[in-house]
Amino acid sequence: MKNFKKGTLFVVSAPSGGGKGTILKRVFNDDDKVFYSVSSTTRAPRDEDTPGVTYNFITNEQFEKMIADNAFLEYAGYCDNYYGTPSAPVFENLNAGKDVVLEIETQGAFNVKKVFPEAALIFLMPPSLKELRRRLEKRGTETKESIEKRMDQAKREIPLAEKYDYIVINDGLEKAVADFSAVCEAARLRCHADELVKEVFENA
Amino acid sequence: MKNFKKGTLFVVSAPSGGGKGTILKRVFNDDDKVFYSVSSTTRAPRDEDTPGVTYNFITNEQFEKMIADNAFLEYAGYCDNYYGTPSAPVFENLNAGKDVVLEIETQGAFNVKKVFPEAALIFLMPPSLKELRRRLEKRGTETKESIEKRMDQAKREIPLAEKYDYIVINDGLEKAVADFSAVCEAARLRCHADELVKEVFENA
Repeated sequence: MKNFKKGTLFVVSAPSGGGKGTILKRVFNDDDKVFYSVSSTTRAPRDEDTPGVTYNFITNEQFEKMIADNAFLEYAGYCDNYYGTPSAPVFENLNAGKDVVLEIETQGAFNVKKVFPEAALIFLMPPSLKELRRRLEKRGTETKESIEKRMDQAKREIPLAEKYDYIVINDGLEKAVADFSAVCEAARLRCHADELVKEVFENA
Repeated sequence: MKNFKKGTLFVVSAPSGGGKGTILKRVFNDDDKVFYSVSSTTRAPRDEDTPGVTYNFITNEQFEKMIADNAFLEYAGYCDNYYGTPSAPVFENLNAGKDVVLEIETQGAFNVKKVFPEAALIFLMPPSLKELRRRLEKRGTETKESIEKRMDQAKREIPLAEKYDYIVINDGLEKAVADFSAVCEAARLRCHADELVKEVFENA
C-alpha cells in the first residue's frame, strides 16, 4: 500500500446486515494508519452503545451550537434526533497522513461529497435482497418488525449506489475483502495522483 | 467476474516499456469475452507488423473517407500519418456483451471519454522514470535514440494520469495483474450500476 502526505477520506455505505463491519475490520487492519470517524448524536445511549466509540452523545444545545459553528462535515435529523460527522477530527487526521473512514448513510455520503469532492464514496452491495434478508435473519438479534424496517431502508438505499464512485459486491468474505482493498488502493492513487506523478519523476 | 448485457469499454494507456502488453494478456485472458480494438493507420507496415492484428493498414483516401463518414471513435495525425479507432467494431462488440480494450495514447483516451463518458480510462504507471528506463534498456531492441524518444514521451504522458479514472502502479507483475483486475471489476460494476441494482432487486 502506498502512503501519501495526506490521508484519503473513505465514505462507506451499506445496507445494515451487509457485513460492513467485518469487512472494514479486515481491510483497515492497521489501526495506527486509519482513523474511524465517530458520529455525534443527540439520541439517548442504548445498552449496546459505548460513548465515544459507537457515538459521541451530546445535548441538543451542544449539537445546535456545532451547527451554528459550521463544525459538521454533514449532519441530518432522523426521528427527532440529530446525527452528524464532526469536521475537526476528520481534517486533523487527513492532514496528519491518516486515512479516514466514515460509515454513513447515503444522504450523508452525498453531502460529504458536495463539500469534499476528493472523498471516495464506496457502496458495499449485497448480492441480492434475498441474501440480505437471510443474513439479517441469521443474526438472530432482530425482531421481525426491525428486519422489515431494515429491508425497506435497504430498498431505498441500494438504487443510490449508482451515484457512488465505487461499488463492491459482498458475496463471500474473502473476495469482498480483496475487492474492497483493491478499490481503496485505486481510490488512494486517484486521490493523490499529483503526488504520485511527482514521485515517479523524482526517481528519474 | 460479473457479466452484464453490454460490455465495458476499457481505455488503457501506459508509457511504452511499461509492460502493458504482458499485464493485459494476463488480465483479459478469456479471449471469447474480450475484444481488442485494432487501430487503423495510413503509415506503411513494418517488419514486426501483422496487418489486421497490430494495425489495419489503409490508404490516405480510405482514412479520410472514414473521417468524413464519422466512422472513428477517435483519430489523430502523428508524423504525417493518421491513426484512428474505428467505431463500428467497438460498438458491435459492446452491444454483444463483450468488453472492449483500446490501447491508445493519452490524447486519444480523452477524445474517447468525450464522446463515450462510460469508458473506463486506466493509466498503467511505472514505479519511477528510472525503472521505466531500465526496462526499456533491458529489452535490448531499442537504439539509444529511440529510448530517449520514448522517455520524452513518457514524461509528457505521465502527468496526464491525473485525468484518468483509475491508476494502477506496475511495480511487480503479480501485484499489477491483481490490481488491474480489481480495477476492471470496479469499473464494470460502476459502469453497469443500473443493471446491477436491478439484479439485486430481482432476487428478493
